[in-house]
Amino acid sequence: DLAQAVVEHFQTGELAGLNVLLNAGPTRENIDPVRYISNHSSGKMGFALAQACVEAGAHVTLVAGPVYMPTPSGVERIDVVSAREMADAVLSRSAQADIFIASAAVVDYTPVEIAENKIKKNASQMQLILVKTIDILTSVATQGSATFCVGFAAETDNLEAYAKDKLEKKSLDMIAANWIGRKNVGFNSENNALSVYWKGGEQELGYMPKSELARELVTLIAKRYHEKNTT
Amino acid sequence: DLAQAVVEHFQTGELAGLNVLLNAGPTRENIDPVRYISNHSSGKMGFALAQACVEAGAHVTLVAGPVYMPTPSGVERIDVVSAREMADAVLSRSAQADIFIASAAVVDYTPVEIAENKIKKNASQMQLILVKTIDILTSVATQGSATFCVGFAAETDNLEAYAKDKLEKKSLDMIAANWIGRKNVGFNSENNALSVYWKGGEQELGYMPKSELARELVTLIAKRYHEKNTT
Repeated sequence: DLAQAVVEHFQTGELAGLNVLLNAGPTRENIDPVRYISNHSSGKMGFALAQACVEAGAHVTLVAGPVYMPTPSGVERIDVVSAREMADAVLSRSAQADIFIASAAVVDYTPVEIAENKIKKNASQMQLILVKTIDILTSVATQGSATFCVGFAAETDNLEAYAKDKLEKKSLDMIAANWIGRKNVGFNSENNALSVYWKGGEQELGYMPKSELARELVTLIAKRYHEKNTT
Repeated sequence: DLAQAVVEHFQTGELAGLNVLLNAGPTRENIDPVRYISNHSSGKMGFALAQACVEAGAHVTLVAGPVYMPTPSGVERIDVVSAREMADAVLSRSAQADIFIASAAVVDYTPVEIAENKIKKNASQMQLILVKTIDILTSVATQGSATFCVGFAAETDNLEAYAKDKLEKKSLDMIAANWIGRKNVGFNSENNALSVYWKGGEQELGYMPKSELARELVTLIAKRYHEKNTT
Protein backbone atom coordinates (compact mmCIF):
# COMPACT_ATOMS: atom_id res chain seq x y z
CA ASP A 1 0.00 0.00 0.00
CA LEU A 2 0.93 3.67 -0.17
CA ALA A 3 2.17 3.98 3.42
CA GLN A 4 4.42 0.99 2.86
CA ALA A 5 5.71 2.47 -0.40
CA VAL A 6 6.56 5.72 1.36
CA VAL A 7 8.37 3.86 4.15
CA GLU A 8 10.38 1.82 1.63
CA HIS A 9 11.18 4.96 -0.30
CA PHE A 10 12.65 6.64 2.77
CA GLN A 11 14.60 3.45 3.43
CA THR A 12 15.93 2.84 -0.07
CA GLY A 13 16.22 6.23 -1.86
CA GLU A 14 19.66 7.62 -2.71
CA LEU A 15 19.42 10.02 0.22
CA ALA A 16 17.37 7.71 2.48
CA GLY A 17 17.26 8.97 6.06
CA LEU A 18 19.59 11.92 5.49
CA ASN A 19 18.83 15.49 6.60
CA VAL A 20 19.17 17.93 3.72
CA LEU A 21 19.14 21.68 4.30
CA LEU A 22 18.73 24.02 1.31
CA ASN A 23 18.41 27.74 0.81
CA ALA A 24 16.74 29.16 -2.29
CA GLY A 25 15.56 32.34 -3.93
CA PRO A 26 16.91 35.86 -3.53
CA THR A 27 17.14 37.95 -0.37
CA ARG A 28 15.92 41.52 -0.03
CA GLU A 29 17.97 44.19 1.74
CA ASN A 30 15.96 47.24 2.75
CA ILE A 31 17.37 50.70 2.06
CA ASP A 32 14.37 52.36 3.74
CA PRO A 33 10.71 51.34 4.18
CA VAL A 34 10.15 51.76 0.42
CA ARG A 35 13.35 50.85 -1.41
CA TYR A 36 15.39 47.64 -1.39
CA ILE A 37 18.23 45.83 -3.13
CA SER A 38 17.64 42.31 -4.43
CA ASN A 39 18.87 39.71 -6.91
CA HIS A 40 17.28 38.28 -10.02
CA SER A 41 16.38 34.81 -8.77
CA SER A 42 13.12 32.96 -9.19
CA GLY A 43 14.01 30.18 -6.72
CA LYS A 44 12.97 27.59 -9.31
CA MET A 45 16.21 25.60 -9.20
CA GLY A 46 16.28 25.50 -5.39
CA PHE A 47 12.65 24.42 -5.13
CA ALA A 48 13.22 21.73 -7.78
CA LEU A 49 16.22 20.50 -5.78
CA ALA A 50 14.17 20.38 -2.58
CA GLN A 51 11.57 18.24 -4.32
CA ALA A 52 14.22 15.95 -5.84
CA CYS A 53 15.78 15.46 -2.38
CA VAL A 54 12.41 14.44 -0.90
CA GLU A 55 11.92 12.01 -3.79
CA ALA A 56 15.38 10.58 -2.99
CA GLY A 57 14.25 9.81 0.57
CA ALA A 58 15.73 12.75 2.48
CA HIS A 59 14.21 14.86 5.26
CA VAL A 60 14.28 18.30 3.65
CA THR A 61 14.32 21.79 5.18
CA LEU A 62 14.12 24.70 2.74
CA VAL A 63 14.99 28.24 3.82
CA ALA A 64 13.37 30.43 1.16
CA GLY A 65 13.74 34.10 0.33
CA PRO A 66 10.79 36.09 -1.06
CA VAL A 67 9.60 34.04 -4.06
CA TYR A 68 6.21 33.22 -5.53
CA MET A 69 6.53 29.42 -5.47
CA PRO A 70 4.40 26.70 -3.87
CA THR A 71 6.15 24.53 -1.28
CA PRO A 72 7.02 21.06 -2.67
CA SER A 73 5.14 18.27 -0.92
CA GLY A 74 6.98 16.89 2.11
CA VAL A 75 9.34 19.87 2.46
CA GLU A 76 9.60 21.93 5.64
CA ARG A 77 9.78 25.55 4.50
CA ILE A 78 11.05 28.57 6.45
CA ASP A 79 10.39 31.95 4.81
CA VAL A 80 12.90 34.76 5.28
CA VAL A 81 13.51 38.15 3.68
CA SER A 82 17.01 39.51 4.36
CA ALA A 83 20.47 37.91 4.15
CA ARG A 84 20.76 38.26 7.94
CA GLU A 85 17.48 36.37 8.46
CA MET A 86 18.53 33.69 5.97
CA ALA A 87 21.88 33.28 7.72
CA ASP A 88 20.17 32.92 11.11
CA ALA A 89 17.68 30.36 9.77
CA VAL A 90 20.41 28.29 8.06
CA LEU A 91 23.11 28.46 10.74
CA SER A 92 20.70 27.46 13.53
CA ARG A 93 19.94 24.26 11.56
CA SER A 94 23.18 23.41 9.76
CA ALA A 95 24.76 21.38 12.57
CA GLN A 96 21.95 18.82 12.14
CA ALA A 97 22.27 18.72 8.34
CA ASP A 98 24.08 15.88 6.55
CA ILE A 99 24.01 17.88 3.33
CA PHE A 100 23.69 21.65 2.75
CA ILE A 101 22.80 22.88 -0.74
CA ALA A 102 23.29 26.63 -1.11
CA SER A 103 21.17 27.51 -4.11
CA ALA A 104 20.02 30.91 -2.85
CA ALA A 105 21.14 34.11 -4.55
CA VAL A 106 21.96 35.90 -1.31
CA VAL A 107 22.47 39.65 -1.75
CA ASP A 108 26.12 40.09 -0.82
CA TYR A 109 26.13 43.82 -0.01
CA THR A 110 23.53 45.43 2.21
CA PRO A 111 23.03 49.09 3.19
CA VAL A 112 25.20 49.97 6.20
CA GLU A 113 22.04 51.24 7.88
CA ILE A 114 18.32 51.06 7.14
CA ALA A 115 16.61 54.44 7.21
CA GLU A 116 13.64 54.38 9.57
CA ASN A 117 11.62 56.79 7.44
CA LYS A 118 11.38 57.08 3.66
CA ILE A 119 14.37 58.98 2.30
CA LYS A 120 13.15 62.15 0.55
CA LYS A 121 14.67 62.81 -2.84
CA ASN A 122 16.27 66.19 -2.97
CA ALA A 123 19.79 65.70 -4.24
CA SER A 124 20.44 64.90 -7.88
CA GLN A 125 22.80 62.16 -6.74
CA MET A 126 22.66 59.76 -3.86
CA GLN A 127 25.50 57.75 -2.38
CA LEU A 128 24.74 54.41 -0.86
CA ILE A 129 27.32 52.75 1.39
CA LEU A 130 26.97 48.99 1.35
CA VAL A 131 28.70 46.44 3.57
CA LYS A 132 29.25 42.76 2.93
CA THR A 133 26.60 40.40 4.24
CA ILE A 134 27.60 37.25 6.08
CA ASP A 135 28.75 34.49 3.71
CA ILE A 136 26.31 31.74 4.67
CA LEU A 137 27.94 28.97 2.65
CA THR A 138 31.44 29.68 3.99
CA SER A 139 30.04 29.80 7.52
CA VAL A 140 28.48 26.34 7.14
CA ALA A 141 31.49 24.87 5.31
CA THR A 142 33.94 26.04 7.95
CA GLN A 143 31.90 25.47 11.11
CA GLY A 144 33.70 22.19 11.69
CA SER A 145 30.71 19.91 11.27
CA ALA A 146 30.73 17.03 8.81
CA THR A 147 28.10 18.67 6.60
CA PHE A 148 28.56 17.92 2.88
CA CYS A 149 28.40 21.37 1.25
CA VAL A 150 27.22 22.08 -2.27
CA GLY A 151 27.61 25.61 -3.63
CA PHE A 152 26.42 27.35 -6.76
CA ALA A 153 28.20 29.77 -9.05
CA ALA A 154 26.22 31.95 -11.44
CA GLU A 155 28.51 33.96 -13.64
CA THR A 156 28.45 36.17 -16.71
CA ASP A 157 32.10 35.42 -17.53
CA ASN A 158 34.98 33.05 -16.68
CA LEU A 159 32.53 30.47 -15.35
CA GLU A 160 34.87 27.49 -14.89
CA ALA A 161 37.69 29.51 -13.32
CA TYR A 162 35.38 31.32 -10.87
CA ALA A 163 33.59 28.07 -9.95
CA LYS A 164 36.80 26.11 -9.30
CA ASP A 165 38.21 29.02 -7.31
CA LYS A 166 35.05 29.12 -5.18
CA LEU A 167 35.14 25.33 -4.67
CA GLU A 168 38.65 25.55 -3.25
CA LYS A 169 38.48 28.85 -1.36
CA LYS A 170 35.25 27.93 0.43
CA SER A 171 36.32 24.29 1.05
CA LEU A 172 33.19 22.98 -0.66
CA ASP A 173 32.51 19.34 -1.50
CA MET A 174 30.89 20.24 -4.80
CA ILE A 175 29.96 23.27 -6.87
CA ALA A 176 27.36 23.59 -9.62
CA ALA A 177 28.01 26.38 -12.09
CA ASN A 178 25.74 28.00 -14.64
CA TRP A 179 25.91 30.91 -17.04
CA ILE A 180 23.69 33.94 -16.57
CA GLY A 181 22.92 36.78 -18.93
CA ARG A 182 22.60 34.32 -21.82
CA LYS A 183 19.42 33.38 -23.62
CA ASN A 184 17.16 30.70 -22.10
CA VAL A 185 19.40 29.74 -19.17
CA GLY A 186 19.78 30.81 -15.57
CA PHE A 187 17.45 33.10 -13.60
CA ASN A 188 13.72 32.75 -14.23
CA SER A 189 14.27 30.31 -17.09
CA GLU A 190 12.45 26.95 -17.08
CA ASN A 191 15.57 25.18 -18.36
CA ASN A 192 19.18 25.31 -17.39
CA ALA A 193 22.52 23.54 -17.82
CA LEU A 194 25.12 22.97 -15.12
CA SER A 195 28.84 22.29 -15.00
CA VAL A 196 29.51 20.42 -11.77
CA TYR A 197 32.97 20.34 -10.17
CA TRP A 198 34.45 18.58 -7.15
CA LYS A 199 37.98 17.80 -6.01
CA GLY A 200 39.31 15.49 -8.68
CA GLY A 201 36.29 15.36 -10.93
CA GLU A 202 33.70 17.17 -12.99
CA GLN A 203 30.56 16.46 -14.95
CA GLU A 204 28.44 18.38 -17.44
CA LEU A 205 24.68 18.21 -16.96
CA GLY A 206 23.24 19.28 -20.33
CA TYR A 207 20.44 21.72 -21.12
CA MET A 208 17.15 20.35 -19.73
CA PRO A 209 14.13 21.34 -17.59
CA LYS A 210 15.12 22.38 -14.06
CA SER A 211 13.12 19.50 -12.52
CA GLU A 212 15.16 16.90 -14.46
CA LEU A 213 18.37 18.80 -13.87
CA ALA A 214 17.62 18.77 -10.13
CA ARG A 215 17.21 14.98 -10.13
CA GLU A 216 20.50 14.50 -11.99
CA LEU A 217 22.33 16.83 -9.62
CA VAL A 218 20.83 15.07 -6.59
CA THR A 219 22.05 11.72 -7.95
CA LEU A 220 25.53 13.21 -8.30
CA ILE A 221 25.41 14.70 -4.79
CA ALA A 222 24.26 11.36 -3.31
CA LYS A 223 27.05 9.47 -5.09
CA ARG A 224 29.75 11.87 -3.89
CA TYR A 225 28.27 12.06 -0.39
CA HIS A 226 28.36 8.26 0.03
CA GLU A 227 31.88 8.03 -1.46
CA LYS A 228 33.11 10.65 0.99
CA ASN A 229 31.47 8.92 3.95
CA THR A 230 32.67 5.40 3.19
CA THR A 231 36.33 6.17 2.62
CA ASP B 1 -28.19 41.92 -25.26
CA LEU B 2 -24.62 41.97 -23.99
CA ALA B 3 -23.12 43.89 -26.92
CA GLN B 4 -25.77 46.58 -26.46
CA ALA B 5 -25.09 46.70 -22.73
CA VAL B 6 -21.39 47.18 -23.38
CA VAL B 7 -22.06 49.94 -25.90
CA GLU B 8 -24.37 51.73 -23.47
CA HIS B 9 -21.82 51.32 -20.72
CA PHE B 10 -19.15 53.03 -22.80
CA GLN B 11 -21.65 55.75 -23.59
CA THR B 12 -22.97 56.34 -20.10
CA GLY B 13 -20.22 55.47 -17.58
CA GLU B 14 -18.62 58.22 -15.52
CA LEU B 15 -15.55 58.11 -17.78
CA ALA B 16 -17.42 57.21 -20.98
CA GLY B 17 -15.26 57.61 -24.07
CA LEU B 18 -12.24 59.00 -22.21
CA ASN B 19 -8.69 57.73 -22.62
CA VAL B 20 -7.13 56.85 -19.29
CA LEU B 21 -3.42 56.11 -18.97
CA LEU B 22 -2.10 54.54 -15.76
CA ASN B 23 1.22 53.28 -14.53
CA ALA B 24 1.44 50.69 -11.77
CA GLY B 25 3.81 48.47 -9.83
CA PRO B 26 7.47 49.04 -9.02
CA THR B 27 10.36 49.48 -11.43
CA ARG B 28 13.65 47.60 -11.28
CA GLU B 29 16.99 49.33 -11.77
CA ASN B 30 19.82 46.97 -12.57
CA ILE B 31 23.15 47.35 -10.76
CA ASP B 32 24.70 44.53 -12.79
CA PRO B 33 23.26 41.38 -14.45
CA VAL B 34 22.54 39.91 -11.00
CA ARG B 35 21.66 42.74 -8.62
CA TYR B 36 18.98 45.41 -8.78
CA ILE B 37 17.24 48.12 -6.77
CA SER B 38 13.45 48.07 -6.52
CA ASN B 39 10.49 49.27 -4.47
CA HIS B 40 8.02 47.40 -2.32
CA SER B 41 4.93 47.63 -4.53
CA SER B 42 2.52 44.86 -5.45
CA GLY B 43 0.74 46.88 -8.15
CA LYS B 44 -2.60 45.90 -6.61
CA MET B 45 -3.94 49.45 -6.28
CA GLY B 46 -2.97 50.38 -9.85
CA PHE B 47 -4.49 47.23 -11.33
CA ALA B 48 -7.70 47.79 -9.30
CA LEU B 49 -7.83 51.38 -10.63
CA ALA B 50 -7.36 50.17 -14.22
CA GLN B 51 -10.29 47.80 -13.79
CA ALA B 52 -12.47 50.49 -12.17
CA CYS B 53 -11.70 52.85 -15.09
CA VAL B 54 -12.80 50.22 -17.63
CA GLU B 55 -15.98 49.66 -15.64
CA ALA B 56 -16.56 53.44 -15.75
CA GLY B 57 -16.47 53.33 -19.56
CA ALA B 58 -12.91 54.49 -20.27
CA HIS B 59 -10.38 53.18 -22.79
CA VAL B 60 -7.57 52.13 -20.47
CA THR B 61 -3.83 51.72 -21.10
CA LEU B 62 -1.81 50.33 -18.21
CA VAL B 63 1.99 50.60 -18.16
CA ALA B 64 3.06 47.97 -15.63
CA GLY B 65 6.36 47.31 -13.90
CA PRO B 66 7.40 43.73 -12.96
CA VAL B 67 4.42 42.41 -10.97
CA TYR B 68 2.68 39.07 -10.72
CA MET B 69 -0.85 40.23 -11.55
CA PRO B 70 -3.32 39.17 -14.25
CA THR B 71 -4.37 41.91 -16.69
CA PRO B 72 -7.90 43.20 -15.95
CA SER B 73 -10.35 42.45 -18.75
CA GLY B 74 -10.51 45.18 -21.38
CA VAL B 75 -7.22 46.82 -20.36
CA GLU B 76 -4.34 47.31 -22.80
CA ARG B 77 -1.19 46.41 -20.86
CA ILE B 78 2.40 47.36 -21.64
CA ASP B 79 5.04 45.61 -19.52
CA VAL B 80 8.24 47.45 -18.61
CA VAL B 81 11.10 46.91 -16.16
CA SER B 82 13.13 50.08 -15.53
CA ALA B 83 12.13 53.67 -14.76
CA ARG B 84 13.56 54.71 -18.14
CA GLU B 85 11.39 52.15 -19.96
CA MET B 86 8.32 53.19 -17.96
CA ALA B 87 8.96 56.85 -18.78
CA ASP B 88 9.29 56.08 -22.49
CA ALA B 89 6.09 53.99 -22.50
CA VAL B 90 4.09 56.65 -20.62
CA LEU B 91 5.43 59.78 -22.36
CA SER B 92 4.87 58.34 -25.85
CA ARG B 93 1.18 57.90 -24.96
CA SER B 94 0.39 60.76 -22.58
CA ALA B 95 -0.50 63.34 -25.24
CA GLN B 96 -3.50 61.17 -26.19
CA ALA B 97 -4.59 60.65 -22.57
CA ASP B 98 -7.47 62.59 -21.05
CA ILE B 99 -6.49 61.36 -17.60
CA PHE B 100 -3.15 60.09 -16.29
CA ILE B 101 -3.09 58.19 -12.99
CA ALA B 102 0.43 57.73 -11.64
CA SER B 103 0.08 54.85 -9.22
CA ALA B 104 3.48 53.27 -9.94
CA ALA B 105 6.21 53.22 -7.31
CA VAL B 106 8.95 54.32 -9.70
CA VAL B 107 12.44 53.85 -8.29
CA ASP B 108 13.73 57.40 -8.06
CA TYR B 109 17.47 56.75 -7.96
CA THR B 110 19.20 54.42 -10.39
CA PRO B 111 22.86 53.34 -10.61
CA VAL B 112 24.88 55.88 -12.59
CA GLU B 113 26.03 52.99 -14.76
CA ILE B 114 25.05 49.34 -15.16
CA ALA B 115 27.99 46.95 -14.94
CA GLU B 116 28.08 44.69 -17.99
CA ASN B 117 29.46 41.75 -16.01
CA LYS B 118 28.66 40.60 -12.50
CA ILE B 119 30.57 42.69 -9.94
CA LYS B 120 32.88 40.42 -7.92
CA LYS B 121 32.81 40.92 -4.20
CA ASN B 122 36.23 41.65 -2.87
CA ALA B 123 35.98 44.81 -0.82
CA SER B 124 34.34 44.78 2.59
CA GLN B 125 32.44 47.90 1.55
CA MET B 126 30.94 48.96 -1.72
CA GLN B 127 29.91 52.45 -2.74
CA LEU B 128 27.03 52.83 -5.13
CA ILE B 129 26.52 56.16 -6.89
CA LEU B 130 22.88 56.67 -7.83
CA VAL B 131 21.37 59.40 -9.99
CA LYS B 132 17.78 60.60 -10.08
CA THR B 133 15.50 58.92 -12.58
CA ILE B 134 13.18 61.00 -14.76
CA ASP B 135 10.11 62.20 -12.85
CA ILE B 136 7.36 60.71 -15.05
CA LEU B 137 4.45 62.43 -13.35
CA THR B 138 6.05 65.88 -13.49
CA SER B 139 6.92 65.31 -17.14
CA VAL B 140 3.30 64.52 -17.99
CA ALA B 141 1.87 67.30 -15.81
CA THR B 142 4.12 69.97 -17.34
CA GLN B 143 4.12 68.85 -20.97
CA GLY B 144 1.47 71.43 -21.78
CA SER B 145 -1.29 69.01 -22.72
CA ALA B 146 -4.69 69.13 -21.07
CA THR B 147 -4.19 65.78 -19.35
CA PHE B 148 -5.85 65.56 -15.93
CA CYS B 149 -3.07 64.28 -13.66
CA VAL B 150 -3.57 62.22 -10.53
CA GLY B 151 -0.55 61.50 -8.34
CA PHE B 152 0.02 59.27 -5.34
CA ALA B 153 1.97 59.88 -2.18
CA ALA B 154 3.06 56.99 0.02
CA GLU B 155 4.73 58.21 3.16
CA THR B 156 5.97 56.96 6.50
CA ASP B 157 5.61 60.40 8.11
CA ASN B 158 4.06 63.87 7.57
CA LEU B 159 1.57 62.43 5.06
CA GLU B 160 -0.73 65.43 4.61
CA ALA B 161 2.06 67.99 4.38
CA TYR B 162 4.09 65.95 1.86
CA ALA B 163 0.99 65.20 -0.22
CA LYS B 164 -0.18 68.82 -0.41
CA ASP B 165 3.36 69.94 -1.22
CA LYS B 166 3.55 67.40 -4.06
CA LEU B 167 0.11 68.47 -5.38
CA GLU B 168 1.28 72.05 -5.69
CA LYS B 169 4.91 71.58 -6.75
CA LYS B 170 4.01 69.12 -9.52
CA SER B 171 0.92 71.08 -10.63
CA LEU B 172 -1.31 68.03 -10.20
CA ASP B 173 -5.10 68.01 -10.43
CA MET B 174 -5.42 65.56 -7.57
CA ILE B 175 -3.29 63.52 -5.20
CA ALA B 176 -4.17 60.37 -3.28
CA ALA B 177 -2.12 59.82 -0.15
CA ASN B 178 -1.64 56.70 1.96
CA TRP B 179 0.46 55.68 4.92
CA ILE B 180 3.09 53.01 4.56
CA GLY B 181 5.00 51.08 7.20
CA ARG B 182 1.82 50.71 9.26
CA LYS B 183 -0.09 47.52 9.86
CA ASN B 184 -2.57 46.33 7.20
CA VAL B 185 -2.30 49.31 4.85
CA GLY B 186 -0.21 50.22 1.82
CA PHE B 187 2.12 47.93 -0.14
CA ASN B 188 1.02 44.33 -0.62
CA SER B 189 -1.99 44.78 1.63
CA GLU B 190 -5.46 43.83 0.36
CA ASN B 191 -6.99 46.89 2.00
CA ASN B 192 -6.02 50.51 2.13
CA ALA B 193 -7.30 53.97 3.05
CA LEU B 194 -6.66 57.18 1.10
CA SER B 195 -6.66 60.88 1.85
CA VAL B 196 -7.42 62.66 -1.42
CA TYR B 197 -6.48 66.31 -1.97
CA TRP B 198 -7.08 68.77 -4.79
CA LYS B 199 -6.94 72.57 -5.08
CA GLY B 200 -9.64 73.75 -2.75
CA GLY B 201 -10.88 70.42 -1.49
CA GLU B 202 -10.16 67.09 0.12
CA GLN B 203 -11.90 63.84 0.94
CA GLU B 204 -11.12 60.83 3.12
CA LEU B 205 -11.75 57.41 1.60
CA GLY B 206 -11.91 55.06 4.60
CA TYR B 207 -10.28 51.69 5.13
CA MET B 208 -11.71 49.17 2.61
CA PRO B 209 -10.66 46.57 0.02
CA LYS B 210 -8.52 48.07 -2.78
CA SER B 211 -11.15 47.16 -5.42
CA GLU B 212 -13.82 49.25 -3.64
CA LEU B 213 -11.35 52.00 -2.88
CA ALA B 214 -10.45 52.11 -6.59
CA ARG B 215 -14.10 52.58 -7.55
CA GLU B 216 -14.54 55.40 -5.03
CA LEU B 217 -11.38 57.13 -6.22
CA VAL B 218 -12.45 56.80 -9.87
CA THR B 219 -15.80 58.40 -9.02
CA LEU B 220 -13.93 61.29 -7.39
CA ILE B 221 -11.56 61.61 -10.38
CA ALA B 222 -14.47 61.61 -12.84
CA LYS B 223 -16.32 64.27 -10.86
CA ARG B 224 -13.29 66.57 -10.67
CA TYR B 225 -12.37 65.90 -14.32
CA HIS B 226 -15.83 66.95 -15.54
CA GLU B 227 -15.89 69.99 -13.25
CA LYS B 228 -12.53 71.11 -14.61
CA ASN B 229 -13.60 70.58 -18.21
CA THR B 230 -16.95 72.35 -17.98
CA THR B 231 -15.81 75.49 -16.22
